[in-house]
Amino acid sequence: MQVAILLFNGFETLDVFGPVEILGRLPDRFQLSYYSLTGGIITSTQGVEISTRTIGEIPLPLHILLIPGGKGTRSEINNKELIYEINRLADSSDYVLTVCTGSALLAKTPLLNGRTATSNKRAFDWVMSVNTQVNWKRKARWTVDAKYYTSSGISAGMDMTLAFVGDTLNAESARQVAREMEYEWNDNPENDKFSAATPQ
Amino acid sequence: MQVAILLFNGFETLDVFGPVEILGRLPDRFQLSYYSLTGGIITSTQGVEISTRTIGEIPLPLHILLIPGGKGTRSEINNKELIYEINRLADSSDYVLTVCTGSALLAKTPLLNGRTATSNKRAFDWVMSVNTQVNWKRKARWTVDAKYYTSSGISAGMDMTLAFVGDTLNAESARQVAREMEYEWNDNPENDKFSAATPQ
Repeated sequence: MQVAILLFNGFETLDVFGPVEILGRLPDRFQLSYYSLTGGIITSTQGVEISTRTIGEIPLPLHILLIPGGKGTRSEINNKELIYEINRLADSSDYVLTVCTGSALLAKTPLLNGRTATSNKRAFDWVMSVNTQVNWKRKARWTVDAKYYTSSGISAGMDMTLAFVGDTLNAESARQVAREMEYEWNDNPENDKFSAATPQ
Repeated sequence: MQVAILLFNGFETLDVFGPVEILGRLPDRFQLSYYSLTGGIITSTQGVEISTRTIGEIPLPLHILLIPGGKGTRSEINNKELIYEINRLADSSDYVLTVCTGSALLAKTPLLNGRTATSNKRAFDWVMSVNTQVNWKRKARWTVDAKYYTSSGISAGMDMTLAFVGDTLNAESARQVAREMEYEWNDNPENDKFSAATPQ
């Protein structure tokens, strides 16, 4: 399955490389590529520079679209060309995975209308304000609604991606990857201790 | 504090970008740069390409040297020039952090002789064979001995790096970063559930 990772300046480092560590451990199943609106070098909030191809080079139909969050989403939410492309790509993908405030970018399209989604707890009110027609679920480590997987902040992307591996391959593959990473997988999407720290 | 991240082909993605997410959230305290023996593009086991400068460009004395693990360590352990440079850099650093099998590369120098260290549980016998004069501790999420911090496999690097932030800045900074990441920090180095899965 081809995985297109959509980057923009100010993406959050672990939003991308947590899922990349997981999917990249199964190279026979997942092929990862990095794209951005303009192509070229894209820099994370933590200063990591990644070489990207342009969005137009993404082969369609796409299997998996991954959209990270990060500080950059605050300006990209007003980037009409990017939102147009997210709408086009997400609509023709088998699965769409968002991490952290990546769900705000996806919610700027109509694709999440009437669907359940979550996001970073510390940015939740802003994310909800982007689209009030989404069923925003504050207490969730991640959500799944049809082909849309959305996770809470940053680290939650790893728990969601392991669940995605479990759903699309099998549970043992997900557990094996978690063991190899010596990662204590929170495999219960309802177990979200971070939602308690924010207004309900 | 300057943080030099030492890369080689076949480094493990999360060994680097877990700690980078954490230290990169404190840009007033930690400045991160990427280096390799030859400079240029270095590729992780999961296919992430990172632009690096040459090791000779690392400013000395260095504050923090970070050495990741990954499949590449199996060949780099025999790279005499790299081990020489690790010895030189680690000796003149205030702190040395290794993640996963990165401790094998450090143990190839004499710097860990007589010191306590740990490593990836699934590669532990190989790592021990690199240097029997190290006090290898199998059951440990991470270890600290003088200026040397060594962690278990992959994800454990995040727990260790948060502890390093707690030790060098303060505990509240570490807890704040973990909260921002929605990361369930395992802050007890003796709590290592993964060691049970391997021979003691």
